[in-house]
Amino acid sequence: MYHVISAKAFTKDHLQKLLQEANTMQNMLTQGASRVLEGKIMAALFFEPSTRTRLSFETAMHRLGGNVISTENAREFSSAIKGETLEDTIRVVSGYADVIVLRHYEIGAAARAAQVSQVPVLSAGDGAGEHPTQALLDLFTIYREIGRTEDLTIAMIGDLMYGRTVHSLVYMLSQFPGIRLICTAPQTTPMPVDVIEYATSRGVHVEFEQDLHVAAKKADVLYQTRVQKERFKTLEQYEMSRDAYIIDESILELMGQRSIIMHPLPRLGEITQVVDQDPRAAYFRQTHYGVPVRMALLKQAVMKE
Amino acid sequence: MYHVISAKAFTKDHLQKLLQEANTMQNMLTQGASRVLEGKIMAALFFEPSTRTRLSFETAMHRLGGNVISTENAREFSSAIKGETLEDTIRVVSGYADVIVLRHYEIGAAARAAQVSQVPVLSAGDGAGEHPTQALLDLFTIYREIGRTEDLTIAMIGDLMYGRTVHSLVYMLSQFPGIRLICTAPQTTPMPVDVIEYATSRGVHVEFEQDLHVAAKKADVLYQTRVQKERFKTLEQYEMSRDAYIIDESILELMGQRSIIMHPLPRLGEITQVVDQDPRAAYFRQTHYGVPVRMALLKQAVMKE
Amino acid sequence: MYHVISAKAFTKDHLQKLLQEANTMQNMLTQGASRVLEGKIMAALFFEPSTRTRLSFETAMHRLGGNVISTENAREFSSAIKGETLEDTIRVVSGYADVIVLRHYEIGAAARAAQVSQVPVLSAGDGAGEHPTQALLDLFTIYREIGRTEDLTIAMIGDLMYGRTVHSLVYMLSQFPGIRLICTAPQTTPMPVDVIEYATSRGVHVEFEQDLHVAAKKADVLYQTRVQKERFKTLEQYEMSRDAYIIDESILELMGQRSIIMHPLPRLGEITQVVDQDPRAAYFRQTHYGVPVRMALLKQAVMKE
Repeated sequence: MYHVISAKAFTKDHLQKLLQEANTMQNMLTQGASRVLEGKIMAALFFEPSTRTRLSFETAMHRLGGNVISTENAREFSSAIKGETLEDTIRVVSGYADVIVLRHYEIGAAARAAQVSQVPVLSAGDGAGEHPTQALLDLFTIYREIGRTEDLTIAMIGDLMYGRTVHSLVYMLSQFPGIRLICTAPQTTPMPVDVIEYATSRGVHVEFEQDLHVAAKKADVLYQTRVQKERFKTLEQYEMSRDAYIIDESILELMGQRSIIMHPLPRLGEITQVVDQDPRAAYFRQTHYGVPVRMALLKQAVMKE
Repeated sequence: MYHVISAKAFTKDHLQKLLQEANTMQNMLTQGASRVLEGKIMAALFFEPSTRTRLSFETAMHRLGGNVISTENAREFSSAIKGETLEDTIRVVSGYADVIVLRHYEIGAAARAAQVSQVPVLSAGDGAGEHPTQALLDLFTIYREIGRTEDLTIAMIGDLMYGRTVHSLVYMLSQFPGIRLICTAPQTTPMPVDVIEYATSRGVHVEFEQDLHVAAKKADVLYQTRVQKERFKTLEQYEMSRDAYIIDESILELMGQRSIIMHPLPRLGEITQVVDQDPRAAYFRQTHYGVPVRMALLKQAVMKE
Repeated sequence: MYHVISAKAFTKDHLQKLLQEANTMQNMLTQGASRVLEGKIMAALFFEPSTRTRLSFETAMHRLGGNVISTENAREFSSAIKGETLEDTIRVVSGYADVIVLRHYEIGAAARAAQVSQVPVLSAGDGAGEHPTQALLDLFTIYREIGRTEDLTIAMIGDLMYGRTVHSLVYMLSQFPGIRLICTAPQTTPMPVDVIEYATSRGVHVEFEQDLHVAAKKADVLYQTRVQKERFKTLEQYEMSRDAYIIDESILELMGQRSIIMHPLPRLGEITQVVDQDPRAAYFRQTHYGVPVRMALLKQAVMKE
């Protein structure tokens, strides 16, 4: 069965097929809707709210002609509150729907769900664990905007320690040749050693550059993330780090003309609003690419079933 | 692009076309469903709960063959809680859906949303501001039940100060000739001066009548609203005002045989339950007219896009 | 109009027709979807959350080609919070949808709703009252798994006092000949006298057996329920009762080879996980039978309308 649990599980071959399928979906969206999943049902089981991700998945299912059953806060509203195990909930719901999209607050929940489900499980994030479909849409953004997924310089900026989308994207990029990774992070939230080792062992060239201005000149992609206050010991440390990693007009001037700025959103002040007008600001297009990517995954999951 | 933000923005010509389109929709509902918006998606973005309005919009979209993505409490459940601006949320969601229905708790939110949205925005109410689709269904109720939207006497009853549906309806009625407005309100919650000036400057005849019995004899439409306790300084004042503006059997006896009673709902004690049986009690039909009105708006918004 | 309010209202003839219709639906589900309710709308009005039941009904409606409008916590999110009566809410929503599925926290709410609704009302449980569609899916489980609904020995186990699904099922089984009921309950939560009288007056043979091992040998169906802590005066009493009524491997050894284990779910420790692997463990299939049963009810309700 076709589950989507971890970014590490995708081979280069599989990623390339998905990018092509997502591309087909993106082109189709401009022409009209598909009915390929007519009569099929997607269950959106969100044990914690994540409205953006849920609406993106639901949009994808509708664009394929399918139906949706949904709960946006199952932790509070479902039998989980009565002590039911996740496994039992999945056993029940997998008898209703043709595919389950699961968001959970515990690491490993998606893998546990996949083990007992009668139907494919697509993880929409599990706690501090992975968020594989976000990584896929990030990769698809690079593919659409830059035109390739190899021979690239990616600067990862901000919170590289806790930002799970960063790790998942590194795992996927590591499948491709010619990847140069620039880690531009405050000292309190560096890229974890195991992620770096995963990448370097697969041929990724990793370098560390604390100065965003230097990184901006070199990178094809600036992948910005939010630095969170609670990661710092003092307010002063936080404010210094935050202010050192803001993408504003001065950064735009240093960037190459064909480079892009990405961000998993929501963004606060770490990209200034004036940057939005620049065609290299790709972060809203990035979130919209989530729909064709999830269409590709849903189609593959349900049709294979 | 076709946004619906303010009742003031509708010209007489536009209103008349909408009434005709809503009429067509109403007639179609008795025969079966339309598929005119098949494959299209409406996003119901409710930053505060308003179940009645949300279900009415969602019904309208389904009756046109379209799909719905929905969040009923985005203030609490979405990235708004992480500090994302409304503008960013709209930039994201307008890449998923073909039309956005927005309910927000801040005055002016709908206008801000319309400025950055890629797709039409229909306001479902913004804070103490306007609720234009409620005004449209109120106008459509008069059109269907009385048979015309001009040469009419409308008594507005109860809380005319804070009741935003009252103001929006006055703005729309002001487009038509021969409108006589009777304001029947407690002294603590009178019709605001700027609303009266808006109406009189457009030819509406406005009079003030504290006695509901007098107003009931004259009016083609009794538009009842709820008087809220928190608007009064003393409980005694509140109870006096509340009791002075109850529509009961004695009012039915004074009303003309072709007059009607309207109410934006929910109603508490301000219309007694025995009134429900009278054919002139139009308030439940009124809420049902919301479906064809919103069908007309959705069709116009999505087809024009 | 076709309302579903009480398990007692179903005649034997009606139950048999429903079982056949649900059987047709179940067979259809393996072949593909129906479009028989295309263009129709089901309103899921849940005044308290019950995610499993809601998703089951919504799945059923989608499998028939229909659409759904839904609120999962109307008590908190709707006009109920402003003091609107249930009757008014139903008057409003029954002008939007073609059928209403109502879950409420008050006994008798479904019957009150049916009195004022313009469209059929299907109860999805009202407080400590009945849960008739759960009883129907229980009956359908017996029909599919055992092959008949008469000449049966059913052991009801655990909390027979407060477990409303138990009572509703007894009401339905009482329509059929040759039913033997074994009540296997702790002394603190016995089967209520009025339920026993209802059954015996209709020819059901009722016996009492405190030893689960004895019951397991005799029964065609072991209907397990959850014993709840709050029903007992002392923790010791609770733990004794709970431990005396666990279905585990020792019970499997005593059961007949064609007997089955049922449970309305969620289950905690009262059926051990190792039992799940046994083909006689019917409780997950049971919850899945809810879909064809609710399809049969929805079709009947909407088509008759």
